[in-house]
Order: sequence, then C-alpha cells, then structure tokens
Amino acid sequence: MAEAGKKAIQSAHHLPVDSIYIGAMNVEEFVGDGNFAALLADYMGLSGVASSRVETACSTGAAVFESAFYAVASGYMKNVLVVAGEKMSHLPKTTTARILTEVIDREERRYGATMSALAGMIAHRYQKEFGLSDKRLRKVLARVVEKNSANGTLNPYARAKRTITKEVYERGRLIATPLRLFDCSPNADGAAAVVLTCEKTPIRVSGMGHATDTMALRHRASITSFSSTRASALKAYAMAQLNPRDIQFAEVHDAFSIFEIIGTEDLGFFESGQGWRAVEDGTTALDGRLPINPSGGLLARGHPAGASGLAQIVEIAMMMLGEVEGKRQIKWADVGLAQSAGALANNNVVTILEKSDRHRVLTTGWQPEYKPVIQVGTSDGTPGTLDDSGILETYTTLYATPEGFSPPHTLGLVGLEGGRMVLARYPKYLEKDRFKIGQRVLLKKRGESMLFETAGFLETMKNRVKSLFGRKTPREKRNQNTAP
Amino acid sequence: MAEAGKKAIQSAHHLPVDSIYIGAMNVEEFVGDGNFAALLADYMGLSGVASSRVETACSTGAAVFESAFYAVASGYMKNVLVVAGEKMSHLPKTTTARILTEVIDREERRYGATMSALAGMIAHRYQKEFGLSDKRLRKVLARVVEKNSANGTLNPYARAKRTITKEVYERGRLIATPLRLFDCSPNADGAAAVVLTCEKTPIRVSGMGHATDTMALRHRASITSFSSTRASALKAYAMAQLNPRDIQFAEVHDAFSIFEIIGTEDLGFFESGQGWRAVEDGTTALDGRLPINPSGGLLARGHPAGASGLAQIVEIAMMMLGEVEGKRQIKWADVGLAQSAGALANNNVVTILEKSDRHRVLTTGWQPEYKPVIQVGTSDGTPGTLDDSGILETYTTLYATPEGFSPPHTLGLVGLEGGRMVLARYPKYLEKDRFKIGQRVLLKKRGESMLFETAGFLETMKNRVKSLFGRKTPREKRNQNTAP
Repeated sequence: MAEAGKKAIQSAHHLPVDSIYIGAMNVEEFVGDGNFAALLADYMGLSGVASSRVETACSTGAAVFESAFYAVASGYMKNVLVVAGEKMSHLPKTTTARILTEVIDREERRYGATMSALAGMIAHRYQKEFGLSDKRLRKVLARVVEKNSANGTLNPYARAKRTITKEVYERGRLIATPLRLFDCSPNADGAAAVVLTCEKTPIRVSGMGHATDTMALRHRASITSFSSTRASALKAYAMAQLNPRDIQFAEVHDAFSIFEIIGTEDLGFFESGQGWRAVEDGTTALDGRLPINPSGGLLARGHPAGASGLAQIVEIAMMMLGEVEGKRQIKWADVGLAQSAGALANNNVVTILEKSDRHRVLTTGWQPEYKPVIQVGTSDGTPGTLDDSGILETYTTLYATPEGFSPPHTLGLVGLEGGRMVLARYPKYLEKDRFKIGQRVLLKKRGESMLFETAGFLETMKNRVKSLFGRKTPREKRNQNTAP
Repeated sequence: MAEAGKKAIQSAHHLPVDSIYIGAMNVEEFVGDGNFAALLADYMGLSGVASSRVETACSTGAAVFESAFYAVASGYMKNVLVVAGEKMSHLPKTTTARILTEVIDREERRYGATMSALAGMIAHRYQKEFGLSDKRLRKVLARVVEKNSANGTLNPYARAKRTITKEVYERGRLIATPLRLFDCSPNADGAAAVVLTCEKTPIRVSGMGHATDTMALRHRASITSFSSTRASALKAYAMAQLNPRDIQFAEVHDAFSIFEIIGTEDLGFFESGQGWRAVEDGTTALDGRLPINPSGGLLARGHPAGASGLAQIVEIAMMMLGEVEGKRQIKWADVGLAQSAGALANNNVVTILEKSDRHRVLTTGWQPEYKPVIQVGTSDGTPGTLDDSGILETYTTLYATPEGFSPPHTLGLVGLEGGRMVLARYPKYLEKDRFKIGQRVLLKKRGESMLFETAGFLETMKNRVKSLFGRKTPREKRNQNTAP
C-alpha cells in the first residue's frame, strides 16, 4: 500500500498532500494491526498529515475514493492521496474464508451460506428467468472467464498469467452450483492509489453514485438484478449528465462471472436478460463495441477486497492517459465507468471518469435515457408464522463449504405467500441436485434451521431404501413373506 | 447505534437522508460482523441509502463527522446522517484488551506496552518536566477524576453514577505507575448520532482540523505534548477564525486523566506545563472560566471507542441548544470545541461548533494568537547500532499487564546519543520502581528484547541475595569460612 501510495504521489509530481484517505476492508483480522490510517501515513513518511480509513466491505476502494472526492470538492482540501489495499493471502484458507464471510447477513451465514453460495443461487435464478439451458449458461460463463483471463494476460498488474479456455474452465471443480472454480475471483494481495486534486488535470471525476441494499438476499425484491447498482448508476449518470450509451468502456465488479453479466444490465448497457448475449457475440470483448473489464477484472486481477474498487478507477485513468501496454490499450477512451460492489451488492459505488479536454457542452437539454426500476428490498425482521410449503425461487449446492458444514450442502430460497422468502437447507440424502426452480417444496423446522423437501422426496427415499435392501423395501418384503 | 441514529433523524424533523456515515472502530472483532455500513443502514430501515464507514481508532467518532461534513460542504449531499458507536463490554476482558492493543505500534506491543503503559510513561515525564512532586501529581490527577465524575453524575448518558473523591481515587489499584484505576476511562458500549445538513440550523460547524503523529511514542519529538492535537487545533482555529480564548467550553479526550491536562495545553488554553494549575484552581470546573468536559468526559461517560469523538460533538451541540439537564447547563455556550484522539494521539481531530446567530463579523483582520511549536516525530525504521547506555527519558511499571506478561512489568524509554529513543524493559528483580528520569542506564540485548539496568542494579541484587542468605552473601560466607 505504501508502495502504491508513493508511486501515486510521484506521478502527481509530488503535490503536497493535505489529507490521506485509506481503504482497507479488515486489516485488524487479516494482519492484526488497528489504527491503520495513522500507521500507513507513518509508514509512507507522511506522519502529521490527516489520515482517515473508509470501509464498505468489497467496494471499499471505490467508497474511499468517493469520500476523498467530497473532501476536495468541498474546497477544504487541495490534494488528497487515496490508497486502498488488502493483504489476505498469508492466512490459512479457512481463516480467510471465515473473515470474508463476516460480510454476509448473520442468518444466511448460520445456514452455511458463503459469497459463492449466494452467487450460485443468483446464477441459477438468472438461468431460469431468462431461459438459458444448462449448456448455454456454462458456455456464457466460460466465455466471461476466457475474455477476462485473456485481458488479464496483457495486464502486468494482473494475477492471472494464462487464458482460461473453455476446456480448462470445465475442468475446474464445482464450488457452488452452477459456479465452478474459475467463475470465482481469487483472493489476492494488492493495492492501488491515486491523488485527487483541485488543480487542472487531464482527467476529471464526472459522475459518482453510491447506494446500499438489504444485507440478506432473501429480503431482496429481485434476485437477478442488484438495486444498489441501478441506484448508484442512476446517480452517477445524472451527475455526469451522461447516458449508458456514452460510456466507452467499463470495469464491472466480476467477483463472480455471473456478476459481470448482471452488472452490465444493471448499468443500463444492455436490457435485463440480454447481458449474456453481449458476452456471446463479443460486444464486451477488448475489440468489441463496449469493452468490459479490459484490465481482466477481479477474475484475472484477483480480488484484494479493499483494493479492487480503486484498482478499477486506476485502470480507467491509465487507459484514458494512454498508459496501458500494447494490445490492451483501447483506442477511444474518453469516458469510462467503474462499478464496485460491497459483499452481495449491499454497498455499491459507480464512478464515471471523463477526459477533461473532451469536447462536450453540458446543456440544460440533457435527458436521462436510463430509467431503471429500482425496488429496494425490506427486512421487516419478524419472521411471523411459517407456511408449511412454498415455491423454490432458487438454490445452490455448495461443494466448497465453510467450517462446520460438509459437501454437498444445498441451500434454497423458498418464496412464501405474500412475497416473503426464507432460506432453507435441503436434507443430505440426495447426491445430485434434482431441483426445479418454481416447484412447490415442503418446509419443516429442525431445531433452529429450516429444511425444504421436494415433492419427489419420499419417492427418492423409497428408491434409495430399495437399492439398499434389494428390489423391494423391507415393508414390501415383510408383506410378501406374510402373504397367504 | 440504530437507536441513536433514529433519534437524530427524529430531532432533525425527519429530513430525508442522502447518505449515512458510520463510525465504528472494530466491529469485526468486537461483534463478528463486517459490511457494517450496509448492515446498519438496513437495520435502521434505510436500505438503499449510500452508507460508508470511517475509522481512525479511538477518534473514529470525530473523523466520521469530518468526512460527513465534507460530503455536505461539497454540495453533493444535502443531509447526511452520522452514527458512531462501539459494542465492547460483552467480551472477556483479556479479549477486549487484546483487540484494543492492536492500535499500538507493533514493536511497542511486543514489549507488553498497553495504552495505560504509554499514558503512564507520559504522566511520569510530565511530572518530571514540570517539577511536580509525587504528592502533587496524585492530587492533580485525583482532581481531574473528581471533577469529571462529578460532572458525569449530572449527565444521564454517563456511565459513572457517583463522584470519585480523592479518598476513593487513592483506593483504586495501580494500573501503570503513576496511573491508578480511576485515571483510566472505562470500556463501555455506546453510540451517538447527528444529522448534518446544508439547511440553516441553530448551530454551524465553524472549525475543523485533523492531523496524525507517529505510531510509536519512541519516535516522537515530545513526550509531554501531542503534535497532532496542536496541528489539528491550529487548522480548526484558522478555519473558524477563532483563538483559544474565544472558546467557552470544551470536551477534551480524557482517555486518561493526564491526557485532559496535556490536551488543554496543546489546544492553547493554557501554557505548556500550566494545565495542571487550571485543574487545581478550578478554572476548568463546571462553574469555572473554561469548563472542560462538562459531560464528564470519557472518564465518566465511558469510552466506547468509535463513539466517543461524536459523543463529544453531540454534547457540545446539546449544550448550545440549552438541551442539557439542570445544573450541568453552562450559561454562556456559544462556541464550543471538541478534541478527540485516536490511540496514542496518532490521529487527532479538533472540531469547533458555533451558534449560527452569534453576532460575529469575520474580518480580514483576524490574527492567529495561537502559534504552537509543532514537531512531528519521524520513524526512520533503521534501528542502527545500539549504544550500550543512555538516559532514562521516562518509564512506567505496569500492574495490569497484557496476556503473556506478568506484573510488575517495567518499561522505559531510553534516549540515545543523537536524540533517538528506544523502548526497553527492566528485568524483574525489583518490586518497587526506584527509577529516576534523567539517570544514565545500561542497555543490554536479551534475545529479541532490549533490557535496561540502572547503575544501582548490582547493589540492589547484592542486597536481595543478602536478605535471602542472611546478612552475608554466599561468597562472603565462603570467604569467612575459609579465612585463616
């Protein structure tokens, strides 16, 4: 982080810094140091300078940029150094997983939900809502992974050094159905830094938006769209007086491959349910009409939680300055957008950068073309009495389970009368998931947990018992033996 | 925190909130929840609203207010809700102590330094530099504790419900010499909240300053003054075009009683080394010329780490609005100041509030009267070769030791040639401290730690051996026995 910070100051021609804004998600647990804003100032040789830390889970890097922007925009600060980073690769995997899971709703955590589990449920629902076959979905997700990893090979700051072809993708183990290893951005260490200044510079912050959503997926109004991305995009476009079609390239929060697709829809680049087509037809490729994640995104860059949001912004700035190496450099790079999501898009930030010398007249006649439906969910807190059945809205089977759970671990979101949803787990009798989104399932309470059972559950149990005891169940055998 | 937040919105006549700024020091470790900005927004029924968390160790509450202020001052936000709090009393004391110690420099932590230890060293140095006898120092510190606890009894939000008289104070056990139990602010749970708005209100933020200092006490230029308080006060006075003598009352960060005295000096209320006199002669009492900590301060209110800085600001606002109960209400309350320190004054924030209808003309003729010497320390990082002796600059004997250390545990700061200081511990042979600040001590390396030994050390050892083996040492006895 200090290295990135010093580099940023250097590239800003050593402007004197009035204040430092630090982004880091969880330094206390990852590295055991608190008081991190002061510590980093000291470490960079900037003791004395005001320093604050900002945190919004995985969108920390973008949120700290936002707060620093207000400090400069207020007129009270001339030059502000923004540094964001995370160090997380040195801990045992289970520890890192436990720490990362703290960003999830407490109740969903209790059921063994991880970020991958929630992303898996979202992917299944997307597949169902927009009518993709299993094969088609797999092809589309593999395409996102291939595109971003290929972009990443051109980025010296990326973690990935090879293109993940469809063949390699398919060999990746299942993490949370339908998501496989390469659908998930890897944990990483990293940092990014910029200097924000009131002086005239080649690039200006032209739009900015920030919004939250409910902590729990079950409280959301939609499972295939993030209202916080929509709300923050709306604010950013309005501030910039721009529309989605004005954006020339974007860094979209692809913590999971499916998030990139949903992100491009929520940002208004494509209609709902059409984002996957843009991947398939190459619209979002490096040489496409709207390059998405030319840096390689989180999938290829890696996802050092606190850094990613700012790394996106740095990528966009470097692209605009023509400082990107060789083939990765986009020809038309005057307006770029970065979208960063905190945890399950609980806390999202959209930032639009524009070249300062871009010929554009802000007119009073600007008309917003992007008019998304934004339905923020509600957490009423009172579970009330539970129905004994409901509709399976989505599900996932976890193969990479958190501590205390063993694979396969199936979680489902069950919709009740009146629109409320509950999280429930499936009892561990089936090895393969044979669930159908939209089917009616039975709900049962076991201890503190809710279980869901499919209508075919009894049938399946009977078959399993049959296979254990031969062609007939014990009862059938008994009946046969005592037959007259 | 949600309760405080809702109350603030209510008292702001339900102004629609554009953004939320959350202050909390370490929610991840204290309560096991991350993604706290989104979580709290959700919990307050404000899902959708932008929400960021700001953290600067124990001054978090003031720093989050600062960032929220810039957001409003920038013109991009109309109304911002600021909520700060901490929940820390539910954990075992050793866990809380470990978490709190993370704000201290890593090297100083390794020696078993706690916040109390560092405060103890500062108190001893203050005593020496300004020529206070042991009795006088004890009397002054007891007076701070008595004043603040008495103020606290009048504050329904305070934790302390009784006045700590000198007799009670003296019965408090030693924590880190010369500091006793009641010199240290207690851990507590608590929250505070305000709404900042661009609308006209009875109170305005008139001055604000923020500065850091080196993480390590041994890297500081002074041990009896906090450069970060001085620097942040200087900025705040300049912004407000006010001078120390314009301040009518103040909340000063009394995490330890000695910090209140040093704080009032660093804020320019009193000359260096004169702050203790102002306590003795009643200047800083509730009915004195300059009431300090009319709320009872951290000593009486308790110190919920993330909340304290904002609680100070809320206290000042309530005092100005005449919303404080009975005897505690100060008659002239038009200009108030809050000073909040992160950890060992690594990250300090000074905030000045003024009544909006106060008759005052900002003139170009304003002259700063407060011209403190601000010497920020440096951490060069390279310990270099160590001298074999140095001057004892200050010390403390810890009786409340962190895990892995047992009392009494004596730590000293030893000054070397060229002005550099090292932290060293005293070997555990003496039960009472017989150290003299300014005396030459020997330095020895034992494993990874530096030890200091006083010149009288060998003499003392001899005496101890004598007391164990009778009047004579074994060698003396042997010599006697084999005498011709």
